[in-house]
Order: sequence, then C-alpha cells, then structure tokens
Amino acid sequence: MNIIERKDTLDPFGRIGGQRKSILDEERKHYFIQNASRQIPLFVKVHKAWTLMLIKQEVISAERGKKILEALYRIDERAITEMIQNWDPSGWEPMMQLERYLTAKIGQIASDVNIARTIPPPFYRMELADLLIGLIEATISFRKILLKNASAHVSTVMPGYTHLQHAQPTTYGHYLLGFFDAVDRASLQVEQAYSKTNRFELGCGALSGTSFDIDRQMPADLLGFDGLVEHSNDAVAATDFIVDCVAALTNLMIPLSRVANDLDIWSSFEFGMVEIADHLTNPSSMMPQKKNPAIFEICRMALGQILGSFGEIVCSAHAVPYGDVIEMRELAFKIHPTIREVIRVFALMGEGIDTLIVHKEMMLKHARAGFSTVTELAALLYREANIPLRMAHGIVAEVVRTCLAEGRLATEVSPELVKQAALKVTGKTIRIDSDPLESALDPSRFVEVHDSQGGVAPSEVNRMIKVRDKDLTKTVERQAKRLEKLHEADSELNRQVERILNSRGK
Amino acid sequence: MNIIERKDTLDPFGRIGGQRKSILDEERKHYFIQNASRQIPLFVKVHKAWTLMLIKQEVISAERGKKILEALYRIDERAITEMIQNWDPSGWEPMMQLERYLTAKIGQIASDVNIARTIPPPFYRMELADLLIGLIEATISFRKILLKNASAHVSTVMPGYTHLQHAQPTTYGHYLLGFFDAVDRASLQVEQAYSKTNRFELGCGALSGTSFDIDRQMPADLLGFDGLVEHSNDAVAATDFIVDCVAALTNLMIPLSRVANDLDIWSSFEFGMVEIADHLTNPSSMMPQKKNPAIFEICRMALGQILGSFGEIVCSAHAVPYGDVIEMRELAFKIHPTIREVIRVFALMGEGIDTLIVHKEMMLKHARAGFSTVTELAALLYREANIPLRMAHGIVAEVVRTCLAEGRLATEVSPELVKQAALKVTGKTIRIDSDPLESALDPSRFVEVHDSQGGVAPSEVNRMIKVRDKDLTKTVERQAKRLEKLHEADSELNRQVERILNSRGK
Amino acid sequence: MNIIERKDTLDPFGRIGGQRKSILDEERKHYFIQNASRQIPLFVKVHKAWTLMLIKQEVISAERGKKILEALYRIDERAITEMIQNWDPSGWEPMMQLERYLTAKIGQIASDVNIARTIPPPFYRMELADLLIGLIEATISFRKILLKNASAHVSTVMPGYTHLQHAQPTTYGHYLLGFFDAVDRASLQVEQAYSKTNRFELGCGALSGTSFDIDRQMPADLLGFDGLVEHSNDAVAATDFIVDCVAALTNLMIPLSRVANDLDIWSSFEFGMVEIADHLTNPSSMMPQKKNPAIFEICRMALGQILGSFGEIVCSAHAVPYGDVIEMRELAFKIHPTIREVIRVFALMGEGIDTLIVHKEMMLKHARAGFSTVTELAALLYREANIPLRMAHGIVAEVVRTCLAEGRLATEVSPELVKQAALKVTGKTIRIDSDPLESALDPSRFVEVHDSQGGVAPSEVNRMIKVRDKDLTKTVERQAKRLEKLHEADSELNRQVERILNSRGK
Amino acid sequence: MNIIERKDTLDPFGRIGGQRKSILDEERKHYFIQNASRQIPLFVKVHKAWTLMLIKQEVISAERGKKILEALYRIDERAITEMIQNWDPSGWEPMMQLERYLTAKIGQIASDVNIARTIPPPFYRMELADLLIGLIEATISFRKILLKNASAHVSTVMPGYTHLQHAQPTTYGHYLLGFFDAVDRASLQVEQAYSKTNRFELGCGALSGTSFDIDRQMPADLLGFDGLVEHSNDAVAATDFIVDCVAALTNLMIPLSRVANDLDIWSSFEFGMVEIADHLTNPSSMMPQKKNPAIFEICRMALGQILGSFGEIVCSAHAVPYGDVIEMRELAFKIHPTIREVIRVFALMGEGIDTLIVHKEMMLKHARAGFSTVTELAALLYREANIPLRMAHGIVAEVVRTCLAEGRLATEVSPELVKQAALKVTGKTIRIDSDPLESALDPSRFVEVHDSQGGVAPSEVNRMIKVRDKDLTKTVERQAKRLEKLHEADSELNRQVERILNSRGK
Repeated sequence: MNIIERKDTLDPFGRIGGQRKSILDEERKHYFIQNASRQIPLFVKVHKAWTLMLIKQEVISAERGKKILEALYRIDERAITEMIQNWDPSGWEPMMQLERYLTAKIGQIASDVNIARTIPPPFYRMELADLLIGLIEATISFRKILLKNASAHVSTVMPGYTHLQHAQPTTYGHYLLGFFDAVDRASLQVEQAYSKTNRFELGCGALSGTSFDIDRQMPADLLGFDGLVEHSNDAVAATDFIVDCVAALTNLMIPLSRVANDLDIWSSFEFGMVEIADHLTNPSSMMPQKKNPAIFEICRMALGQILGSFGEIVCSAHAVPYGDVIEMRELAFKIHPTIREVIRVFALMGEGIDTLIVHKEMMLKHARAGFSTVTELAALLYREANIPLRMAHGIVAEVVRTCLAEGRLATEVSPELVKQAALKVTGKTIRIDSDPLESALDPSRFVEVHDSQGGVAPSEVNRMIKVRDKDLTKTVERQAKRLEKLHEADSELNRQVERILNSRGK
Repeated sequence: MNIIERKDTLDPFGRIGGQRKSILDEERKHYFIQNASRQIPLFVKVHKAWTLMLIKQEVISAERGKKILEALYRIDERAITEMIQNWDPSGWEPMMQLERYLTAKIGQIASDVNIARTIPPPFYRMELADLLIGLIEATISFRKILLKNASAHVSTVMPGYTHLQHAQPTTYGHYLLGFFDAVDRASLQVEQAYSKTNRFELGCGALSGTSFDIDRQMPADLLGFDGLVEHSNDAVAATDFIVDCVAALTNLMIPLSRVANDLDIWSSFEFGMVEIADHLTNPSSMMPQKKNPAIFEICRMALGQILGSFGEIVCSAHAVPYGDVIEMRELAFKIHPTIREVIRVFALMGEGIDTLIVHKEMMLKHARAGFSTVTELAALLYREANIPLRMAHGIVAEVVRTCLAEGRLATEVSPELVKQAALKVTGKTIRIDSDPLESALDPSRFVEVHDSQGGVAPSEVNRMIKVRDKDLTKTVERQAKRLEKLHEADSELNRQVERILNSRGK
Repeated sequence: MNIIERKDTLDPFGRIGGQRKSILDEERKHYFIQNASRQIPLFVKVHKAWTLMLIKQEVISAERGKKILEALYRIDERAITEMIQNWDPSGWEPMMQLERYLTAKIGQIASDVNIARTIPPPFYRMELADLLIGLIEATISFRKILLKNASAHVSTVMPGYTHLQHAQPTTYGHYLLGFFDAVDRASLQVEQAYSKTNRFELGCGALSGTSFDIDRQMPADLLGFDGLVEHSNDAVAATDFIVDCVAALTNLMIPLSRVANDLDIWSSFEFGMVEIADHLTNPSSMMPQKKNPAIFEICRMALGQILGSFGEIVCSAHAVPYGDVIEMRELAFKIHPTIREVIRVFALMGEGIDTLIVHKEMMLKHARAGFSTVTELAALLYREANIPLRMAHGIVAEVVRTCLAEGRLATEVSPELVKQAALKVTGKTIRIDSDPLESALDPSRFVEVHDSQGGVAPSEVNRMIKVRDKDLTKTVERQAKRLEKLHEADSELNRQVERILNSRGK
Repeated sequence: MNIIERKDTLDPFGRIGGQRKSILDEERKHYFIQNASRQIPLFVKVHKAWTLMLIKQEVISAERGKKILEALYRIDERAITEMIQNWDPSGWEPMMQLERYLTAKIGQIASDVNIARTIPPPFYRMELADLLIGLIEATISFRKILLKNASAHVSTVMPGYTHLQHAQPTTYGHYLLGFFDAVDRASLQVEQAYSKTNRFELGCGALSGTSFDIDRQMPADLLGFDGLVEHSNDAVAATDFIVDCVAALTNLMIPLSRVANDLDIWSSFEFGMVEIADHLTNPSSMMPQKKNPAIFEICRMALGQILGSFGEIVCSAHAVPYGDVIEMRELAFKIHPTIREVIRVFALMGEGIDTLIVHKEMMLKHARAGFSTVTELAALLYREANIPLRMAHGIVAEVVRTCLAEGRLATEVSPELVKQAALKVTGKTIRIDSDPLESALDPSRFVEVHDSQGGVAPSEVNRMIKVRDKDLTKTVERQAKRLEKLHEADSELNRQVERILNSRGK
C-alpha cells in the first residue's frame, strides 16, 4: 500500500501532500490577515535569535547567516502587507508565508532558519506569556483598589453572614481584605503559570531533537525565556502550562464571582447596603424606577467562561496521542479570549468597588437589629459568670426567643431579661451588669474586641493591611523585573544582530 | 436610605440611573457597530408585528400606529449607518439606538412600540433559531454523504474492533451506517431544540405580563414562531432551550469525534486502511515525508468546545435569581460560535469522508490476518458438532494459540488442527469438513452470513440504507416546511403592514 | 509477532489471556459482592427471555433450552450467596460468575445462553431505565406540591425581581407556577430519555450481528423494552441516551438551583419573606441565634454534581474508538449516583416548599415600599393622558426621584406630585385623579389587572393551574402505563417459562 | 417579623431552630456510622490541641482543662460504638455527637472546647491533606517505575509520531522519560497543593475571630500544620486549595490518559508493538481470540472523572455568598473519591507499564519501514552538499515519492536515487556517498546522532535519567520530612497532654 499515490502533490516547498485548493483556504487566509501584524514580528524576532545561534555554532555559514539576518532586519509593516497580498495556500501556516516572502527576497537559503525546528514552538508560549503579563498587571491594580477600600472601611460595621444568615458583626473593610487574600494567592499562581509558560522548546526537532550541533540556551536567553523545556517530546506534548493558567484564573474568579454576587444582593432594595455608581448601572427600557447593578452580574458570569475553558482544554486533550498533535497548539490559543475576559472583568469590578456607594448607616442598622452579636453575650456569660459554653448558648437562645416573641431588638436586651433566661435554663441566679451587657451587644464594640489574629478589630485589620501592602510592593517589583528582563533580552538581541550586520566581510 | 441620591441621573429616556460616561461605553459602541446590520432589521420586523397587534387591539390609535409603521418601513442600510454615526451611550442597548432614531424621525410616539414588552425577547430566540436552521441543513448534507458512502462500501470488508482489538469482521459501509444512525438521532434533537427555541415570549412585561389588552398569538404567528412561552416569568427565566441545543450538539459531536479519531488511527502507517485526500492534508514544515490528516484532529477537537460551552452555560446559570438576569440573554448568545463551529466541522468531515481514499485491499488483509472470524468457527462447532458454546470457545482458543505459536494465519487453519484442539479440550474426536471451515474463517463469507437484523451482511445493510434513505427524505421535507412557514409569515407581515400604509386617512 | 506468547493463559472458560492473580481481583470481587443481589436477578430474567427465543428459533434444542430454563428458574437468594462464596477471578464479569454457577449445576450447555450476544447489553440500559422510572415518580410528586402551593398563593402579593431589583409586583403563586413550567418541560425530557434508554440491543454480536437465525424483537417484548437499537455497532457504541439523561437532569436542576437560591435569599434577615420549617433547618454549633436554611444550599449545590457528571461523560467519550470500549458500559453506570442525588434533592426541596412558612405581610410590605408598581403609573399616564410611553417614563422617573429625595413611599404619591413631574418633563399640565392613581400604585390592584395571557392576575394563574393540572394527570397516566407494560412483560415472560417447564418430553 | 415563631424549638444544645424529626435524619445517622471511626479520633486530636492552648492562655481554667483532657484521653473504639448507639438527631453534626458523649461523661464543661471555633475547620483540610500524602506516595512509586523502564529502553528504537504519523525515530525509553517529566511537574504541584491545604483555620470564630485571648499558632504546630489561614473570613470562604488539588490531578492525568491511549493503540494487531501482561488483561465472553488491554481504557477514562470533579466544584461555588456556606465543607469532601481514583489509576498504570511486554523487533520494523528518518537525509544534503533546507526537503520528498511508487523501503534508498531526485529538483548534479546515506536512513543510527539537549540519543537520555533520579531522591526526602513532621507533632501533642494529666492538683 502506498501512503502517497498521486504525482501531482509536489508543492512549492517540495513537500509531499501539498496543499492546493481546499475548503480550508478561505479561513486560513482570513486567519493570516487577522493575525499577521501581531505574529510576523514575533516570528522575525525568534528567527533572528535562532539564526544568531546557528551562526555562532557554525551550523550555517557566517555569510548565509548574515544574508538571512539582513532580510529579517528589513521586515516592516510594508513587508507584512506584501505577505498578505501574496498569500498562498500551499504554505498555509503563517510562518510559511514569511518563509515564502524571505525566499522571494534572498532565495532558498531563507529556509535555513528552520534547521532543527518545528513550527508551533515557541510562538504560542510567547503570546500566552505576554497575556499573562497583562493579567498580572490587572491583578496588581485590582489589589491596590481592594487595599485602599479595605483601609477606608476598617470601621464600617455591618452584619457578617454565614449561610446568608446574620452570624457575627464584621466590617466592610475586613470583608474586602478577605477577598484580597484570595485574589492575592491566585495572583501568585498567575506568576507561577507565567514562569512555567515562559520556557523555550525550540531545538526539539519534531520530537527527537537534532543531529546538528545547536545551543538551545542562547536563543532562549536572547528571547527573554526563563528556561528550557528540556525533553524534546515533552516540549511538543506538554499541556500543563495551559491548565495552570486556567487553574489560576479559576482561583481568581471564584471569589470574584461570589463577591460580585454578594454586592448584587447587598444592592437589593431589602438589603440596601450598597449602591452601584450611576455610570456603571444599566437602566431598564421598561421600568423607569430600575437601577440595575448589571456589572455585578457580568462579573459573576465570567466564572462560567473559565470553567468552560477548562472543560474545553481537558476534554480536547483526552486520549489524544502523547506528542505533537494539532490540539497542542490550538489549546494554547484557545485560552487567549478567556484571559482577556478576566482582565476586563478585573477592570470592571475594580471600578465597581472603587466607586461603590456604601450606605454605612444601613449596614449598621442591620447589624444592630439582627442578633449577630449574641455570641459575645455567650462569651460574656462564660467569662463573667463562669457558665459552660453550651449552657451559655442555651441562655442566649432563650434571650433571643423572648426578644423575637416580644418584638425587641438585640439592643434592647436588659440585664433582667438575661437573668430570667439564665434562671430558666440553669435554675440558678446569675449576676450581670448593665455596662458589659450593653457593650457585648453593640456591634461596633463587638468589632473592636474581636482582635484575635485575623479578626475583625480595626486594629487587627490595619495591621494586616500593612503587611499585605508591603507584600504587594514586592509583587510590583517582581513584575518590574519581569518586564526589564524581557526588555534587556530584546536589546541584546538587537545589539547582536546589528553587530553582525555591521561586520565587514561577506 | 435612598437608592438614588444624586440629581443628575436623568437620561434622555427619562430613566433613573442613566448611563453617561462609562468604561463600558467603548465596548458597547463596538458591539453595536458589529451587530447593527444583522440586528436592526430583526428589531424592525418584530416592531412591525407588535405594532400591528397594538393597532388591532386598539392599545394604540390607528393614527399613531400608522406613523410608527411608516417609520419602520423606511428603515434601510442608510438608516442603520445613521444610527451608528449617532450612537449614544445613554441608550446603550442596541434596541434603544433604534428607538432614538425613530424618535428623531417621528417624535416621542416612537416609544409606544415598547408597550407591554421588555427588551431581550424575542431577539435571542430568533437568532438562535436561525442558526439551528443552518445546523439542520448541515446535518442533512452530512447524512446524505454518509448514506452514499455506506452504500458504496457495503462489501468493503475490514476488521471490526472492540477495545481496539480485532473482534469480528465488518464492512466499512456498515461502520458508516452505524455512525449515520447516531447522527440521525442527534439531528432529530436539533429539530426538537429548534421547536423549543422558536417560541414567542413577548407580552410578558418585565415578568408580570401587562394590564393592556394585548394578543400575544398574533405577533407570534406573524413572526413565524411555533407557539408561546406562556408564563410571563418562565418567558424571561427559561434556559432549557439553550441546554437542549448544546445537548443536541453533544450527541452530534461525540460520535463524530470518535469516528474522526478512528479515521486518524486508520490513516497511520501501521493501519494504512484509509488516506486523506491531498487537498485536505496538512504538510509539515520540517518533515518532507509527512501527510498529516489534520482535519480529523480538528474535527475530534471540536467536542471539547461543545463541552466547554455546556460548562459555561450551566455554571453561569447556577444559583442566579430565578427570573430575568443578565445571564439569560448572554447565555443564549454565547452558544452562537459553538453552533457555527459544529456547522463548520460537519462540512469539513463531510468533505473528508466523501473524498477519503479507502484502501480496501489493506482492510481485507488485516481482516484475514487477525483471527476476527473465529467466533464463526465457534458457531460452526456448535452447529455442526453440537458442542456447547463455552467448550467451543475453548477449542477455538486452543486453535488460535497453536496458530500464533506456529506463525500461521487464520486462513491457514486446517480441519486437522481443529480436531486436535477439540481432542485436547474435550477429550473427544469431532468431525469437521474442509469447506465449512474455510467458509467460516473467510471474512468476506463471515460478513455475508451475519445477516441478523442490524448485522453486517450487505443484504441487511442495503435494506437498512433504504429505510434510512426514506426517513431522510421526510427530514428534508420537514426542513422545507420549516423554511416555508417562516417565509409565509414574512409575506403576511409585509402584506398587513402595506395594507395599513396604503389605507387612507391618518 | 505473537499477540499471545505464553502457554499458561488458558482460563476455565478456555479463553486466551485468562485472568489469574491480578491487582484488580480484590476490587472486582468487592464489586460482585456489592451488586450481586441486584444484578443476578436481572441477568436471570434476560437469560430466560433470550433462551425462550433461542428455543423458538430452534437455535438451541428444546431439550437443552428446558434444562437451562429449569436452572435459571431455581436461582434464588441462596444461589446468589453460593456464587459469592465461589467467586472466581477467571470469570471476573459478574455475568461470568452466573455462568460458572449454572455450569456447575447443568454442565457446559449452560454457556449456550451466550449465543449471538456480548456481555454489557442490555443490563446497563435496564438499570438506567429503572432509575428513570423513579425519577419520573419524584418529579410527579414534586409537581403536585408546586401546583398545590401555587394554588394556595395566587393572591400572595410580593415584589417581582429582575436583576434582583424590584421590577413589577407578582404573587408567590405565579412565581411557583413559572417554576412548575420549567420542571414540567424537563420532566417530559426525562420521559423521552427513558424511551431512548429503554431499547434492546441484544443480538448485536460483538458488533457484527450473528449468523444464527435469531429474533431480536421477541426478547425485547418479553423484557418490556420499547424497541430495538437496530444497527449492531450502534448498539454497542451509542452514548446519546446517557447524554440525554444528564441533559434532562440539567434542565430539572438549573431552575431548582435558582429557586433554592431565591428562597435562601428570601430567608435572610433583610428580606424576611419566607422561613424554613424547623425540622429542616440546621442549627449552628457556635451561634445560638442561627437558623440556617441549609437544605436550600444543599439543593442549590446539586447542580454542580450534574454538571460534573456531564463533563465526566463527554470527556471520557472523547476520541475513543467508535464501537464497544470499556467507557461505554462504565459511563452508563456512572450517572446512577447522579440520578439518585436528583431524586433525593427533589424530595428535600418538595418537603421544603411544602412546609415553608410564608410571611405574606412582609412580602406585601416590600412590594408596597419598593416602587415596583410604577410601570403601571406609566401605563396610566399613557392611557389617561395619551402621553407617549417614553415620556410617561420620564414623568414616572421624576416622581420616583422626588419620593426618594423626600423619603416618601410609593403609596404616598399624590396626584399633585405627578402633575408637577409632568409639567417639569413635558412642559404641559396634565389631569390625573386620585382614585386611578392610588389604584395604579397599589400592588394588589396591580396584580389583579395584569391579566394578559401568562400574567400574574389570580384569575389568569388559576386558569393556568387548571390546564397544568389536567396535563399532569396525563403524565400520571403515562407513568402508570409504563409500569403496567413492564409488569405485563414480566408476567408473560414467566408464563412462557412455566409453560416450557411444565411441558412433557425431555 | 419573627425569624423564629414557635416555642418548641429548643434543642438539647439550647440552640434555636433545633433539629427534631426530619427526612434528613436517616442519612445523617448513616453518615455518622460510616465515618465515626475515622473522624472521631481526628476530632479528639484537634480538641486536645485546642484545649491545651485554652489552658495555656488561661481562657479556661487548668482544672476544667484537665477534666476535658482526661475525658478526651479515654476515648477509644468502645466510646465510638457508644456514640453510634446513642446517636441523636438534635446534634446531627458528627462533632456534636462527640460533644454529647463528653457532656454525658463530664458535664456541661465539655462544651468549652468550642470556644472561639466553628465546626467545619480544620477537619476537612486534615482529611484532604492526608489523602494528598497518599497521592504523593503513589506518584513517587510511579516515577520510579518510569525511570527504571526508561533506563531499560534507551536503545529500544521505535517510530516517533506526530499527528499519529511517523515523524522521526525515537526510543521507547525517550518516550517514557518525556512522560516522566510531565508527571514530575504535576507531582510537584501535588506537593504545593498539600502545602496550601495543610493550613490551620481554627480561631476564626464564625468569620470574625474572637474576643478571647487565644494563640492560633500553638495548636497549628501541635497538629502538624504548615501555617495559618490568617484572615478569619478567608479561613471559612477559601476554595483555592481544593481547586489546586484538582488542577494537579488534571496535570497528572492528561499525560497519563494520552500515554494509556498510545499503549492501547500500540497494542492493536496492526501496530503490535506492545502487549499487556496476561494478569492485567480482560478476556471476552464472546470472542475466544480477544486479549483486551482494558486497563489502558480504564486509566484513560479516569481523566473524565477529574474533569467532572473540577466542573462540580467550580459550578457549585459559583455565585454563592462569599463566606461560610454549606458548599465550602462539602466541596472539600467531594474530591476524596477523585483522589482515591487517581491513586488507584497510578497503581494500575504503574503495574501495566512495569510488566508490559515490549516487542522491540516490531518497533524497529515499523521504524525502518516508515520513512521517519528522512529528516536526517535532508540534514545530510544540507551538510554534505550545502543545499538549502527547503530545497533539500524537495529532493527528499522526490525520493520518498519514488520509493512509494516503486514499493521500496526507506532502507532501500540508493545514492543513485538521491542524485536523480536532486537533479530533477535542483537541475544540478550532487555527490553523495553510500556510507553516510545508509547511516542517515538507519533509525538506530538516527537515534544515536540526535544527541542535542533533550534529544533521543541514548547518551543524552541516560544523562537526563541521572539528573531526574537525583531529583527524585530529593522528592523522597521531602516526603519523608513531611511524614516526620506530622509524627513529631503527634508525639509532642501527646507529651503535653500527658504532662497535664500527670500533674498534681485538681
């Protein structure tokens, strides 16, 4: 049996099975047109680094290498336009269009840039790494907004909820800081995902490496990579950096979806604790009274896209051959819109939180009305009257029941009421004074004394904010170093190219 | 507490919480520009039908109604361009841009088209229904290709695999027909999803209906809907039509992903049973000998996108308020690219199968070599020598072992060998003739005699193809009726509008 | 190359590659012990039907057939215990343990029940169909509860929300009825999934059918199936019935998750509109005042399990060979716990809704306070003063702003206030009377007049309930027929077996 | 409005909203019975550490503390049985059963162990951490098997595939080592997930911390935690440690699913390159010749379960309140079976690979036949004849075409044939010798010279194995330290408890 039977398959690149007319042509051309101005400069950059290495290792002659570098050096927007105009289906891969162009300019030697390489790497990793840089940036801005607003609201007392029921008083500042911690951990994962993504695979051949005497580290350095994917089949088969990106996005978006949903609930008429700034609201075409906090819905919804992205990647990678298959490249591209959406959502949500109108008086009102301070009453009974915790709970429960039956608020609990409840539950008379009782039941006071490590007391929240602020500065520095490293690699690459272009001799 | 505190929120539409500058403006404008030429005609059509009803029900006066219809009637491409040029953030919804335009032309009465309505319905259902029409079309073409190729290969004998091991001989035609059945059932689900999608919700108010005396059925008919979503909150809260679409896509794509993968495996050097047509193949930039059947990888991969889409929808709908939330509209839009991708994949795969080079001789060679006929040898022992099934299996297993040990093929099994095996396993001598034995072990003969209902015999496969061909004709007729119904509704809508426009008096 | 190289692989069943010691033995034995008492009677039942057919078709002799039927007839709990005690790794499939048992009792002819069959079918479809019967039952009970409570609350006025903001008044009865419609449609899909699941594949051979002269319809009828999966490879490769089950579960659970979440929000201190019955609440170990509506959280959460199940199925089916692979059987089993969980959740949620304490006065209070009636004020302006809709909106918006600024409730809007607003917005004086104004702004009155089809008016809701009640009766009848059909098939099967057992002759 | 209306809700623990008869009772009791013997000792351990801290901080008196510790110290299997017998629905949480037991023994003071705590933490993190320890163990064993087998097969030449087409020769050892690298990176993520999971949240109150003067670090140390989750709301709201677990499992399972699938394909009759050991194979009930490599299917399938688990977690966490909701605890439990399944799959796959029969001769045969060496021929033309890469490709393609047309194998390419092809493509005559040509086209030679970093040359693979072996030793040491730390914390906890129990005084 012959794999290839017909004669007419020789394409301009001399490959068997060449492309001619195909139902895929139109979309491939469209893809090239859409992406050329972003991708071609990337290809050129990598070609330069690779060529410099091939020259240094004497895999190609200095003469050929110089010609190639000259041609690469001259590629500009006009050249890209030319490639688009001359798009040819036979070399449908965008990089093949570049090769066609170079060949037209300097002849067949242009193809020598492909020595010991296969196409997809390292472009998809570079593009992904670039997006991650943007995402890190977005999370830094967002975290600054959270810290700022947490700081502004360390004393903004509100009910704390568990199971959406009043549990213990908290502050809006403490709430935001908890959110900060979750975003902070997830952002660290984005940095780790960047570091895993930003590895260089070139030189892996198709999967087996090469018999040419190449140096993989040199181009990796010139392109600002953080290291190699060493094993030549691992280099074309790996998916973990993609999974890591989506996992980090998930950890960013789960808390964000929940906080957005909380703010949506708190914006309801019944809660009335916060209000979206006018410029972010959606009006209704039908209901004149509406002021929909739509951005919270938009932000909440984005988690679904992340999950969808994860499902797409994992399912597409299931049971496919372990090595280079078309899924490997496509999956790396497929998460681009997902990352862009998360960057957008962080901008929206940051703006939403930073301009949020916080109705402090309503927050406090709910906190006063809702019996969320009574764990402190139990603590008081334990401390002052030495009553075991569960029995103290029994007394408090009795107090709450009485209040509810009589329509009294938590702030209306009297020493007498507590004594009666204690008598009923324990059979004994206890002593309790007015001052500590009032103090225990006041949400603002509650917040102040809950100063255990990580707790809601303004002093403790301020302490935590300071620590996190310092940590965030370090994050900002790491990001600056990351950008600097890329910038320096770029400069060094250009220096080396120019040195050769300026060298005399052939 | 005030929900709205500041004075300056009155927008041109008089709604509270009006939109002015916002970080969302840019993307909303962009969205409008991208979608106006598709959506505005849709809005106009619905407005016409709704206005006709409001006139008939005397909710608006004949005079006002006629003015509105006249303005709607005049909307063309130029008008859309005008809307784009005058895009205004205060009415960010695309439909509000239309209202602004109409108001500019005929004054405030233009807004009367909104009576008893809210915005999202019924546009998202109409757009989705339209895509489903295209999908049904695509599956019809695809099924024709499958039947045609199944018919051409009823006698193309090949190994049948279970667990990717040779199990029993089959034919390539039988294989394709099984695939047809799966696609056929899933396509029926697409038709059902169309029918559930193509329901009319308008007149639901925001969620409570209306106090105006409207007739919901009339505009539904004029717009070609198949019925109402009756309950006015169900109308804005429902997600099942979206889930049904993705479920149908899943049932289309699971078998397709598996068949694409099989064809990918069969295209390997080792199987060598099929070969992708040249014009669909991907060459390699590095390896001159490669002819990658990339479209099978592309098609296989699309299942991941479906799953991702499902995950996105379900997760986004989790725990959101039961009623109209922003997710409801967005989710209906979010599956558009998924449906388009499936349409594309069916075109690709259809082309791939229709032009596939089938190496019959290699298929037969594997079928002969691989012992897949031996269930028939067991059947022979049962029928001719009355040997219980499991014991017959034991004899056959012994025969296979001997062949493997001696390097014999299945076609080289002699009566003598079977007798020896039978003696060893049962301790008894059996009688077996050469002719039936040869016949039992010949894959072509195997295929012919496996003529039970649904089996691989060419006669049975031909019978099944005939039945399915007739059924497909009915599907084609249903699709034609569907299109005709839409077309007739359109005509009737225009007739009614024109009748009013041509009526005398204001 | 030899597939099998070593001699010692002959297992008791004479098959190559027999099982002996394996790290899998322990879990296989455990599986058998766990499942035997449920699965063995199922196997026996299918064996009986198949044997009756083999006898009728004279594939096996009447004598052998009778012996097999006698052995099958005698299998009881004690026999199953014996199988467990004699569990043998060589025939690890549960059905092989039954074959070993039968062989021990009546010799090698026991294996003849396997003629023209492979193992997995039709057990997994039967078990799944059985679970679906239970699920249909659960949704019927649930729908009855919804209709009953909807009926009890047709006049229980509450705010209707869109985007969790007050939109228009509704009733709790109308809300529940909308939920009913969603559950009802999804339940119909469960019935359709049942019908697709309850198909008979036996007689498909391994994938190619058989050369024996079998009749597939007869055993299908004797086992209560609704038809065949005709194509013999489709029979072992199909996954759509599994996907359909999960899609139906999804459509059941999305609205349930959302309603559960709404009830959770409405149970908050701030909303205070409903209260979970005491016997369903979770207390807190730490907070004496807590009454957590945990079942709403539990019910809401179950949607995640459905989505997980969908992801597992689709991913596992991606790119596996199209035919019988181990995934096919496993996936059908894997959704069992998911279906059981949904049945449990419907019971919980049914109980939750049926015993829910509805605080009508609080619902009405919020509806009165929250300006949700003002669309009706706009309608009034349109109807009484002929003011175009958007302009009417502008006036209403002005009214709302003034009220908010002055702390007035919607019920405190005076004709004077409306007139002033109209003057400000339109520059004209309008006439508006006190009575219609009051009427327009009263939520109870609002609800009464919103009587368009599908709307919230008690009269309309009652009408809809009646229609749905009648439809539900039909559903109950279909379910009864379904059970009756299974029961009758069972009786007929036993009759036929007993007729043969009682026949004279060998 | 009253949250609690009825009087009779006082439960034994004095809490409002107490549990009495409920449809949940049965399943809660069942849960307790199933889990008590695992969970109670865990609770006791945590109680001991917490009590020691409360004593040290003088939150409870030395006397009360000692009594509590004595009671805790005496809890054994018999005590657990007693708890099961006395199970009471009012305190349905398993930990409440322990409290009931302790209260029965030492009175109300038993409840003081709950000071400043809420229930779920830190048990779910401890159980999860424990499972992760087991998973790390499993991956270590697995990696050892991979290294061992990679080492054994550094010279086992086989075709390397991209897109399942022959690309370049490789070795089975190189293939396994690439798999090792993927597993190794994912295993490091498991270690990181362990570290994030193994954090202590206790002392977070319900969400606000506590006013008692507690020390959170001390019990964290005594229980072997790696640190605190500091923020008291983050402590009850965090989900990232769960997501991280599933992300790590995903990165473990994607390559495993792909390798399992490769081995499944290589086990086919057509590839015939590997063969599953007999003791791991599944026979067929119907086909005597079958030897199904079912474990590869089982292992491949497990990825679906991971994806399902991810979907379940993310969807369930979508849009729920940010804080303690029932999902937080449940989700941590829900991945237990997933982790157990992965541990099982790694054991299965490890056994499968370690006992795999590798048909080296067939691997080499395919490698020789399939033209995968021709990239080296192109390299030869480049090096020896200075022909640009793409032109060299053209010549090679021509050579391959000729061979296929004439039925020649790659090993039968003569210098003459290459020269003719070169003449045809380039129009020039080149010089090429027999020896280097033969060498270039021999797969074994190909493998030897592809010695670039990460490449397939045995020397390079051996070098990489050595490096990885050293790294694995470090992993083993980290795991040992992890276990030692837990062990030492345990010892210290017991020492401190015993010191107090042995102290004189009350």
